[in-house]
Amino acid sequence: MENFELCLPTKMIFGKGEENKVGEHIKPYADKILLHFGGGSVKRSGLYERVINSLKEAGIEIFELGGVKANPTLPLVYEGIKICRENDIKFILAVGGGSVIDSAKAIGVGTLYDGDVWDFFARKAVPTKSLQIATILTIPAAGSEGSANSVITNEETKVKTGIKCQASRPVFSILNPELCFTLPREQMAYGVCDMICHIHERYFTNSLHTDVTDGLCEATLKTIIRNAKILVKDYRNYNAWAEIMWSGTIAHNGMLGVGRVEDWASHMIEHQLSAFYNIAHGEGLAIINPAWMRYVFKDNIKMFVQYAINVHGVDSSLRDEEALALEGIRRYEKFLNEIGLKTKLNEIGIKDEDFEEMSKKATSFGEIGNFKKLNADDVKEIYKLAL
Amino acid sequence: MENFELCLPTKMIFGKGEENKVGEHIKPYADKILLHFGGGSVKRSGLYERVINSLKEAGIEIFELGGVKANPTLPLVYEGIKICRENDIKFILAVGGGSVIDSAKAIGVGTLYDGDVWDFFARKAVPTKSLQIATILTIPAAGSEGSANSVITNEETKVKTGIKCQASRPVFSILNPELCFTLPREQMAYGVCDMICHIHERYFTNSLHTDVTDGLCEATLKTIIRNAKILVKDYRNYNAWAEIMWSGTIAHNGMLGVGRVEDWASHMIEHQLSAFYNIAHGEGLAIINPAWMRYVFKDNIKMFVQYAINVHGVDSSLRDEEALALEGIRRYEKFLNEIGLKTKLNEIGIKDEDFEEMSKKATSFGEIGNFKKLNADDVKEIYKLAL
Repeated sequence: MENFELCLPTKMIFGKGEENKVGEHIKPYADKILLHFGGGSVKRSGLYERVINSLKEAGIEIFELGGVKANPTLPLVYEGIKICRENDIKFILAVGGGSVIDSAKAIGVGTLYDGDVWDFFARKAVPTKSLQIATILTIPAAGSEGSANSVITNEETKVKTGIKCQASRPVFSILNPELCFTLPREQMAYGVCDMICHIHERYFTNSLHTDVTDGLCEATLKTIIRNAKILVKDYRNYNAWAEIMWSGTIAHNGMLGVGRVEDWASHMIEHQLSAFYNIAHGEGLAIINPAWMRYVFKDNIKMFVQYAINVHGVDSSLRDEEALALEGIRRYEKFLNEIGLKTKLNEIGIKDEDFEEMSKKATSFGEIGNFKKLNADDVKEIYKLAL
Repeated sequence: MENFELCLPTKMIFGKGEENKVGEHIKPYADKILLHFGGGSVKRSGLYERVINSLKEAGIEIFELGGVKANPTLPLVYEGIKICRENDIKFILAVGGGSVIDSAKAIGVGTLYDGDVWDFFARKAVPTKSLQIATILTIPAAGSEGSANSVITNEETKVKTGIKCQASRPVFSILNPELCFTLPREQMAYGVCDMICHIHERYFTNSLHTDVTDGLCEATLKTIIRNAKILVKDYRNYNAWAEIMWSGTIAHNGMLGVGRVEDWASHMIEHQLSAFYNIAHGEGLAIINPAWMRYVFKDNIKMFVQYAINVHGVDSSLRDEEALALEGIRRYEKFLNEIGLKTKLNEIGIKDEDFEEMSKKATSFGEIGNFKKLNADDVKEIYKLAL
């Protein structure tokens, strides 16, 4: 087991109706906030109105910034920073999914930084302080409600990349599974794939003696798979959403990665895909992650054998390691298809024309991944395998 | 799934040699501390000296209070409170196992309270604030290094009972598995039983739809069992200790109990045993917990069937639910015996003479447990089953 540090300071407030008390929850921290959200769905669902009412009841002054889109971009982050600075705002409430929360985190670190916030994403500076963030989660997926991470896209340079800052962890996050009932079905599928990949990025490791985290990863993966299948047939099942929603937080709060070297190549390879084609992150991962698996599995086949047996229930009496490993990957793809995801680039109309440039961008800071170190050529091969 | 709140603010610093940097870790919080510890073992092992050196290097003023014993008692807590008040100390470093940490937590809440600290334990007042606590853990067992809980024994009234206060969660805890190498073997066994029971108290529930936490509990239990067996044969195995040590924290930081109604009857029944006979908590639990299981399993047999299959690998094709459930309990007892624990009261020389009084004390605040509500008569039956 590797040495590690872990701190999970976000207060998780989980259950029905909790979003209606958000004003009370904020009161101890701030009298004035930036309310950050996305498009029309929070208004259509009535959530926006309930949040505003609760904030007003608590006497909290509200500055609003809506309009966050999937793959959140820099211009809105700059706008948020400007609003926070001009109005001396110290607290941001993000109401939405990972994109909204990540945008809020970028505003949080950018407001307290004299330079351009993109410096952090370009690895020219390291963020250490942030405005306080709280969230009301509407899409279980990114795990941003409990994580230290934020991913932003620079549309001008087509670079999508992330930062990690402990001060960005929300002070609290409200998770009400009922808010998921109105999500479009493809959002559920993207989210499920995203959280599975957050676990895969940690699970596939060459570190030895990772007994307890292996088990926690496997248990969480099995829960997500089991309950996503329930949602396919019974979309308004509260308990299935509750399992998915809480699993999404666990998947990315750090708990499942301690004591082991994590990978993260699939995420970096996918980020280029969604930066170039503006597809959803989960949509891209469903294609890239299995291709990555097929490219790397022979480098530590025992890890993939364990995965096949413990997560996908492949019969271990099949004594051919390669066949076992591949059957695990095949079952993973089959599951992704079952919940409505495509697992090949050609199925979503993407061809090989940008592979060269995307491979270079994915490796612009050097080799990526730890399970197997990947250079631009490797990444290009993975894009090809995904065709 | 039940609604819940969870916040795990303790920074966990895990790995080899970390205790030698304790001074640096404390420096951001305090210049003056109470150093709280137990008996001679921290001095014999050289840990005490290394801690003192690190603290001195960081220029931290040290007030010492040693002498904490297993089942920590009130007089030392009062002494700690007096030292902290007289010297305006705001930070306590506990170096030891659960007893030392629990004693430090009682001092922490007691110092900031005008009345008698025992008021909290007697349910006459609720603790809400504490001095800051940090720990260097030497015995993986109680989980106190990450928990909000503290258990203290009032020797005069023979009452052993606990409090829970979020402000008591340590600001940081240092966990170095190497520190376990010098633990007496019975301490390992007691600790393992204690952490298993922390999970059992959460696992056995009548709450439905507890999919992900069921899986996390089962994975952690299996890790503990597997690695304790390794230690029996290879006591200085770093990785086995690492798995046990981290599992002990997970077992009791709250993570495994969210979304479900917890039980805690076994702990309350055992507390009387160690209050009356001053045996180790883990020693008592190894006897009480299986007896509790045999008394209650028929109330929700499916939970015990799941336990037998998923934790102890009992073959599910055995279609007799009662036989399955009992086989799970039997394997649990067999494991406890394997690591050197007795599972019957008569094996440690305890007879039935105090059952009446102990049953009353265990239920002095009313019925206990949630899996099955237990009154004094039920508790007495469980003591009898444990004979």
